[in-house]
Amino acid sequence: MREIKGGVTVPRGFKAAGIKCGLKKNKKDLALLYSEVPARALALFTTNRIQAAPLKITREHLRGGQAQAIIINSGNANACTGRKGLDDARLMTERTAQGLKIKAKDILVASTGIIGRPLPMDKISRGIKVLAGRLESKGGHAAAEAIMTTDTFAKEKAVKIRVKGKEVNIGGMAKGAGMISPHLATMLSFITTDALITKRALKKAWKDSITKSFNMITIDGDMSTNDMAIILANGLAENEEIEEGGGSFRLFREALDFVTLSLAKMVVADGEGATKFVEVKVKKARNSQEAKKAAQAIANSNLVKTALFGEDANWGRIMAALGQAEIKLKEEKISISLSSLCSCPEGKGKTPRGRGQIVVKGGQAAKPDRKGIKEIMSGKNIRITVDLKSGPEEAVIWTTDFSPDYIRINSRYPT
Amino acid sequence: MREIKGGVTVPRGFKAAGIKCGLKKNKKDLALLYSEVPARALALFTTNRIQAAPLKITREHLRGGQAQAIIINSGNANACTGRKGLDDARLMTERTAQGLKIKAKDILVASTGIIGRPLPMDKISRGIKVLAGRLESKGGHAAAEAIMTTDTFAKEKAVKIRVKGKEVNIGGMAKGAGMISPHLATMLSFITTDALITKRALKKAWKDSITKSFNMITIDGDMSTNDMAIILANGLAENEEIEEGGGSFRLFREALDFVTLSLAKMVVADGEGATKFVEVKVKKARNSQEAKKAAQAIANSNLVKTALFGEDANWGRIMAALGQAEIKLKEEKISISLSSLCSCPEGKGKTPRGRGQIVVKGGQAAKPDRKGIKEIMSGKNIRITVDLKSGPEEAVIWTTDFSPDYIRINSRYPT
Repeated sequence: MREIKGGVTVPRGFKAAGIKCGLKKNKKDLALLYSEVPARALALFTTNRIQAAPLKITREHLRGGQAQAIIINSGNANACTGRKGLDDARLMTERTAQGLKIKAKDILVASTGIIGRPLPMDKISRGIKVLAGRLESKGGHAAAEAIMTTDTFAKEKAVKIRVKGKEVNIGGMAKGAGMISPHLATMLSFITTDALITKRALKKAWKDSITKSFNMITIDGDMSTNDMAIILANGLAENEEIEEGGGSFRLFREALDFVTLSLAKMVVADGEGATKFVEVKVKKARNSQEAKKAAQAIANSNLVKTALFGEDANWGRIMAALGQAEIKLKEEKISISLSSLCSCPEGKGKTPRGRGQIVVKGGQAAKPDRKGIKEIMSGKNIRITVDLKSGPEEAVIWTTDFSPDYIRINSRYPT
Repeated sequence: MREIKGGVTVPRGFKAAGIKCGLKKNKKDLALLYSEVPARALALFTTNRIQAAPLKITREHLRGGQAQAIIINSGNANACTGRKGLDDARLMTERTAQGLKIKAKDILVASTGIIGRPLPMDKISRGIKVLAGRLESKGGHAAAEAIMTTDTFAKEKAVKIRVKGKEVNIGGMAKGAGMISPHLATMLSFITTDALITKRALKKAWKDSITKSFNMITIDGDMSTNDMAIILANGLAENEEIEEGGGSFRLFREALDFVTLSLAKMVVADGEGATKFVEVKVKKARNSQEAKKAAQAIANSNLVKTALFGEDANWGRIMAALGQAEIKLKEEKISISLSSLCSCPEGKGKTPRGRGQIVVKGGQAAKPDRKGIKEIMSGKNIRITVDLKSGPEEAVIWTTDFSPDYIRINSRYPT
């Protein structure tokens, strides 16, 4: 596996574009992603019970398991917009179909931004016309920029693998920032690949990959009405078709996981007001569900997150957060340690740097080295490891600290 | 029912004291509450799975359903302190027993403060000796001060009722601030009454009262390892014994509910960094559990809370928070309105002031009066009413906004 520069337009046959259509002030706000041939398509949607109109239309269009383009706007979520919202989302696919001269049912749609306002369809329709003429095989970055909201940088990743002598590429882009919580597709994320892969194998690899990446990140515990993740596989690599099991499948999964995990970590690193990137690892849990619940409880605790911002190794708050997770706990068995991570947001080297410090042993205060603790807590990348000593399973969740800037950003974001 | 000045020492036969014993710098940190005769006693404890040592000892001492005194320290939680913690909590009851010349098993113990540090038992033992000599029937306020941590004011309430010609009193004190969340006994709260009441009637009234008050408040979604609520009923009013059902019981419940709800609201009003007092009312839910889940999801959403701080009527975030509650929702039926409340924290007048503004109707944007909305959002006391139009049940939860000060306070609080 080799990392390469770029994102969604790295795999063969994918083109993209991103432009300003006037939804946002002087910023790109409309993106189009296109495959020269119809691609196998799968999506995962937010588990929020209030779901925006574009999710409903995308779900409908995905019934055949195929798609050729995705139209995405930022600046307006088209959520809580009733019948008009559904009509508008459908119209976005129809306008795109006209521009691309393909069928509307092969077009998916996504929106992100303010809830409850009607889409200015005149601007969007004009924008779509322009976009269709600007598609290019180097347009991935412009598209990644056009889907941003409070993000401070465009999030892209691409890798190349060799499958039995053929070059296969996987690329992706994502947008995140606030409202990131570990319940499925917690943001917008679009993955492309030129791999030829069976429906069954793609489904398995995709679901597992999301479970280990986008479902494992959290910023503020809030989940949006618009989150979705989509993968398109157009088969243009002309490799021997990848089937479930076997070496090629393993290779493909590894590459896909790298792309989704890298994007997920970038989303965390760009969390609103975040000053720290934090990995919460819970090990030796009774089962994987309890491991995840425990890690989530810590990662979502405002008290733990404010302590991290204050660079305070406040393990009492970690213990209290653990106690809130709905799992069986043996207090007297719990150990907690803190360590530094290096350059995590990029998905490389997760190796802890330097020695970790044990702060809790047998459920009680340990005697960590004060200087060592200070060095860890003052770093940007921190790992919290909790050992429950109760079973074989573990879970890892990524999150941020909680700074006054988070509130500043979110109290000013308009209705 | 008549409200009277004071707290736990208003009912007959109760004495209290609060002193500085040296756990905190120059602030009261040790309180003793005493009844001249043994009282019926009931408690409710945090549902956090990590429970502090004093909770375990209090639970043990409550087995007989009777208590005569409560010793409480602030500044140190005696949580995650292992066997020594249990020994220390037990020793606190023994030292108090010596000072008061009563049995240790009739003494309950509570602690609040930093987790994971051993109690300085020499200071506490000396303090208990002093306290025993300072008990007085006007000592309620000093005790209420001594149990404070990040609280900015002492929380007390007392009322008087007449039960078949006899005067019956109920008093209470509480401490709160951070870590207040709606899962049982979400802080320290001590209620006293001179009512003569059967065990069964007291249990029923107490459980229901907590469910409607302390379990319905939330500040940061975090739940402490030390929270408990205790009621002592010493019978010195010499009223005809109150039994479940009937007019006297109704009267007693009403008075008890007023005291617990007033204290709970004071705790919210004093939430760390809070600038708003917010009532979240969910009505016409399918059942009371779903009503509560919906109200909690809104009250615990960091995005809703930061919008409240920003005085922004961001109903999209309220909808998104609702969608995260694990309940069945019909988006197209939901209405949301905003209104002002007057002087809520004191437990009086919950009547909305002025006209409310409907911001969502049928799941979509309504057209509220901009000036009206601005007036509501800029006020200190705000009610959010959500109508699910799906059934007969409702729930009310009280919370605060989320300000940069919350983070400032919590990132500086030491380990």
